[in-house]
Amino acid sequence: MLEDKNQKKTSLSELGEFGLIEHLTKNITINQETTIKSIGDDAAVLDFNDKKVVISTDLLVEGVHFDLAYMPLKHLGYKAVVANLSDICAMNAKPSQITVSLAMSNRFPLEAIEELYSGIQLAAKIYNVDIIGGDTTSSQKGLIISITAIGETLLDDITYRNGAQPTDLLVVTGDIGAAYMGLQVLEREKQVFQVNPNNQPDLEQYSYLIERQLKPEARTDIKELLSKLEVKPTAMIDISDGLSSEILHICKQSNVGCNLYEDKIPADPQLINVCEEFNLDITTIALSGGEDYELLFTIKMEDFDKIKANPNFSIIGHMVEEKEGTHLITRANTKIPLKARGWNALQNE
Amino acid sequence: MLEDKNQKKTSLSELGEFGLIEHLTKNITINQETTIKSIGDDAAVLDFNDKKVVISTDLLVEGVHFDLAYMPLKHLGYKAVVANLSDICAMNAKPSQITVSLAMSNRFPLEAIEELYSGIQLAAKIYNVDIIGGDTTSSQKGLIISITAIGETLLDDITYRNGAQPTDLLVVTGDIGAAYMGLQVLEREKQVFQVNPNNQPDLEQYSYLIERQLKPEARTDIKELLSKLEVKPTAMIDISDGLSSEILHICKQSNVGCNLYEDKIPADPQLINVCEEFNLDITTIALSGGEDYELLFTIKMEDFDKIKANPNFSIIGHMVEEKEGTHLITRANTKIPLKARGWNALQNE
Repeated sequence: MLEDKNQKKTSLSELGEFGLIEHLTKNITINQETTIKSIGDDAAVLDFNDKKVVISTDLLVEGVHFDLAYMPLKHLGYKAVVANLSDICAMNAKPSQITVSLAMSNRFPLEAIEELYSGIQLAAKIYNVDIIGGDTTSSQKGLIISITAIGETLLDDITYRNGAQPTDLLVVTGDIGAAYMGLQVLEREKQVFQVNPNNQPDLEQYSYLIERQLKPEARTDIKELLSKLEVKPTAMIDISDGLSSEILHICKQSNVGCNLYEDKIPADPQLINVCEEFNLDITTIALSGGEDYELLFTIKMEDFDKIKANPNFSIIGHMVEEKEGTHLITRANTKIPLKARGWNALQNE
Repeated sequence: MLEDKNQKKTSLSELGEFGLIEHLTKNITINQETTIKSIGDDAAVLDFNDKKVVISTDLLVEGVHFDLAYMPLKHLGYKAVVANLSDICAMNAKPSQITVSLAMSNRFPLEAIEELYSGIQLAAKIYNVDIIGGDTTSSQKGLIISITAIGETLLDDITYRNGAQPTDLLVVTGDIGAAYMGLQVLEREKQVFQVNPNNQPDLEQYSYLIERQLKPEARTDIKELLSKLEVKPTAMIDISDGLSSEILHICKQSNVGCNLYEDKIPADPQLINVCEEFNLDITTIALSGGEDYELLFTIKMEDFDKIKANPNFSIIGHMVEEKEGTHLITRANTKIPLKARGWNALQNE
């Protein structure tokens, strides 16, 4: 996207640091009643009254977490926000504010940063969170995005990773694996493009997978949904690194084991088709893929009836005593150890 | 520091992302009663009851904000925390927590990151703030540090940049300009070292300046001090970018002008001597230097008697009507326009 030779390019140094911040933030409005003071001072001021404050932060680095060859900047901004809001949702809390810090090399003109920021602002608008601060600077190489998300919740609603009990049911929202498969499709297209830049790809049959990769959504709806169903999850985490790795986090921190049933893992029909086309095992993709930003949680067995018919949820297994270990029960009814194969940002160094 | 060939080097990829986070955070203790849940879940949980929450964030990039040739990693970690705590102090609030995100290229072994983190932990200990979360990842080039600081205060104590009134007095804590001059000394030593690596520098006469550059402190004491003196500042900012630029921020946001008196700007005797040695104008250094992390604030004229004899404070000028403009009154009693010459992270692109 950055290679479009016709786009207008304004050098960042023309604006200066304060000018850039003013330019990017001039249209930002404040909608949260908890935001007392937003951008423009040494710090933002928030008032949560009797609510508890939930804070999470992420650092995204070009070439490590994203590739601008197939990730449009607006989508990148949107996704960076979603990834952070998802962490707040995983505490069973409601996101309310974000801070956004950007570092970019001089290869990025102002228009590129505006594009990125428009995605950030779109996500803030859709999820109704206030952008309350941040920092903008240059980098020696590439683009770096640091987002801190702030949320609120009543103490009783907070759900940690460590509350799962043996016999609890393991539940996941939505479907799993599509975001990773979307990345595989985009990487293949990038290679095709490098060989033949005039090739017009037909990505229609991959649209859902690509959307899951480029424009994932945070499950801010689940807190309210569970509350209406009168289900209080016992443990919760979001799926950013792959289903197996997230399940093992809950098991480790809750001191329990688990049985995960391969045939219960929810997959979109498009994922099933494309896994066949790519000759990839759909379970491996679901277990190791990551970036789905769905929620994984455990509930008491007696809550089974409350969620069993709900299309938002799939019951994919149950927790067991820690000494029984963590296992995947395959379609062939074989019990194999469940291993973390999630994504590791330091692996490729 | 990184070029010491005898140091032990452990590759970060041996540990992996979760291993590194566990390794770095294993000794972290929680001391703030507002911290309910710290590192180890999707987000941290804080409880401020009737206090307001103050949040600030900074992104520091190697080669832009710091040079590891003369900035030891432990000092860098310490300073990165101080810079953020200073923003909380500038709201007249008390810092309570920080999140710390790091991205580093594979040129950094584990031992280097431990060194950096030890400085971060030392600052957290000295200033009694909890490290409640963060992110750790690899970068394509260099070291990137993103810190978010969280503080608390009663609503009535919060001091913004926009509350200064004409006739208010302009006050600064400590002395100004030493941190920037420390940087000049270190840059000269770096050049000497490049010509003659065996040269043993005698930095004794620059010790205060170098300490101000390498190990600045945040003025967390000022909030309590002002409270004891029963002085409520009308506007406040911290001096990170240079005195003139910070004064102009207050003027712009408060819609006032100011008269700043050159002879009132507090300078350490060592700064005066070294400015002579370097043939640099001390006022220029104080106005444009930055990184002092002192506090600049305005008070009502009737509070003059409460602070006039206090060695922590210097009254350096007074605010005037906006239409009168912003001026420096020189030692020769000439009135010249005050201009921002602060540091700009995007200037050198």
